[in-house]
Amino acid sequence: MANQSESKRTEIAELGEFGLIDRIKKDAKIHHASTLKGIGDDAAVIKGEKELTVISTDMLVEGVHFDLRYAPLKHLGFKAIAVNVSDIAAMNAIPKQVTVSIAFSNRFSVEAIDELYRGINLACEEYNVDLVGGDTTSSNVGLIISITAVGTVEEDKITYRNTAQKGDVICVSGDLGAAYLGLNILEREKQEFLANPNMEPQLDGKNYLIERQLKPSARMDVVYELREKGVVPTAMMDISDGLASELLHICSQSDLGVVIYEDRLPIDRMTVDVATTDFNITPSVCALNGGEDYELLFTVKQEDFAKIENLPDITPIGYTTEASKGRKFVTRGQQVVDITAQGWKHF
Amino acid sequence: MANQSESKRTEIAELGEFGLIDRIKKDAKIHHASTLKGIGDDAAVIKGEKELTVISTDMLVEGVHFDLRYAPLKHLGFKAIAVNVSDIAAMNAIPKQVTVSIAFSNRFSVEAIDELYRGINLACEEYNVDLVGGDTTSSNVGLIISITAVGTVEEDKITYRNTAQKGDVICVSGDLGAAYLGLNILEREKQEFLANPNMEPQLDGKNYLIERQLKPSARMDVVYELREKGVVPTAMMDISDGLASELLHICSQSDLGVVIYEDRLPIDRMTVDVATTDFNITPSVCALNGGEDYELLFTVKQEDFAKIENLPDITPIGYTTEASKGRKFVTRGQQVVDITAQGWKHF
Repeated sequence: MANQSESKRTEIAELGEFGLIDRIKKDAKIHHASTLKGIGDDAAVIKGEKELTVISTDMLVEGVHFDLRYAPLKHLGFKAIAVNVSDIAAMNAIPKQVTVSIAFSNRFSVEAIDELYRGINLACEEYNVDLVGGDTTSSNVGLIISITAVGTVEEDKITYRNTAQKGDVICVSGDLGAAYLGLNILEREKQEFLANPNMEPQLDGKNYLIERQLKPSARMDVVYELREKGVVPTAMMDISDGLASELLHICSQSDLGVVIYEDRLPIDRMTVDVATTDFNITPSVCALNGGEDYELLFTVKQEDFAKIENLPDITPIGYTTEASKGRKFVTRGQQVVDITAQGWKHF
Repeated sequence: MANQSESKRTEIAELGEFGLIDRIKKDAKIHHASTLKGIGDDAAVIKGEKELTVISTDMLVEGVHFDLRYAPLKHLGFKAIAVNVSDIAAMNAIPKQVTVSIAFSNRFSVEAIDELYRGINLACEEYNVDLVGGDTTSSNVGLIISITAVGTVEEDKITYRNTAQKGDVICVSGDLGAAYLGLNILEREKQEFLANPNMEPQLDGKNYLIERQLKPSARMDVVYELREKGVVPTAMMDISDGLASELLHICSQSDLGVVIYEDRLPIDRMTVDVATTDFNITPSVCALNGGEDYELLFTVKQEDFAKIENLPDITPIGYTTEASKGRKFVTRGQQVVDITAQGWKHF
């Protein structure tokens, strides 16, 4: 038998997800001049003759990323596509094709897989992408979905994370924090249901939050709006781990500081109500550290900001500074605190 | 809680893997003219301005596709890349980039993941491909690896499965059946080891078979040789499920019949010896129905065959016929039997 013994054992948790990614990236050599961007952005970038191809991939694991006790399979299929399209949007690119690989145990029937693909096909329709391949296999436990999305973008429109400039306006699309509260509501109802199976779930009036969690949208509409206005962000990424975590990525990769303002954060009224009433959390904490909003975070030059400031669904939340000024959050009470990332911990 | 109840339950096993793929394919609509080929070949094909981009994806699940009790992580990493490169080779394309997503439980240390990536990077070096992205996440049990490979090919060189012509010569590269016997040996030694942990595994003299199973090669050398000789196969695929299964794919997709000859099948001497002595299996059964050889199966026009017949590692095994003549296997004893696929059953 192969000898799998190891002289040293370091837990993944000691490195964290980003530490692990850095470790993998370090040894990944680039052989092709066409590989413009490898590991480290929302998607890889490959140079074609006229356009760039962007490629993004995500893996969703049952019990880690979703819980089928409250996520309907159709919504899950939709979400799996949407989160990958969101990565393509974050490159300012247009999604074109996706591959979908699934592993699932014999707990899943043909009808269940049909339902998953109904959601996948619905999202493919919504985002105008072609399902072009994949793999289907069995797993010993549960469902694993791995999706790769391919998009294209003109060379002068691509947006990376490391290209923000000092003095840019920091913008976000939509509103933040709702998906995190949606998850908290679903988890709470699940616990109550487990304790008392006769209980009826109390989801009334919270549909928006739950939909944000179970069936998020990729903001392709924002990508098209920016194109219409002739604006190319200096940097862009999608908000999957939480605003704070993503801001820190842009800061460290672009070697900049930031200032953002609590009173500028776009937070839906329902998010404010439920955060304070149901969970006793400050709404801006949901916006900063809740994940899975799949909104776009981007930086634009000040003169470009003038072209988009009337768009109803885009909010300026601060600006970029020199790296030496740090990463700052100005509270409603005018206190200045450092931004720290909590993000998602999968390990 | 979401209502996951189903009025009808059909087991996946009733459909089989290919039935499931057909079902998924049926509902996958194509929106982009650039999507030349979607589900149903070794890779998807996307039209660029000058070249085609091919995209292939595979998922490997611990306990289904590999057993870490005998597959060293480094070999596994190598194999995961090689099997995807093999799909790109099957399109007659040159691999350029890969993304690697992994989910793994806390049983895996940083050192274990390093070892996996050592194999991944070794294969990237071997096949001259760039690791450009991926995803890392936790799983509740075991290791899941999902890889997507991207390659390019000139429009006049791409090889599909559905374009073989009547009267073409059917060729295979390398030799067949060895990987299947390698798996059988490893499984036998594992059972003996489980029964008696003091036992030393008996792998002497069988290294070739075991290496074919644990660390298969993608036949990029054959792709380059064909280019050098100016030959474009009329159809090509890689042999992952077994020769019989792949031949039937080419027949049904190209609407043809085939005749192949038992005495032409390329089978290594060690495969013959171990099949007959250790496992009491007819060697040609290993070649026809054993999987994971990752050799190339292709059809060429007769005039093209003349250009490659001196290549030492390419063997003609038969020819294509009209569909009405069926799919025939001529035994050494000149018996003519129908080819039936056994292939791999993951469900």
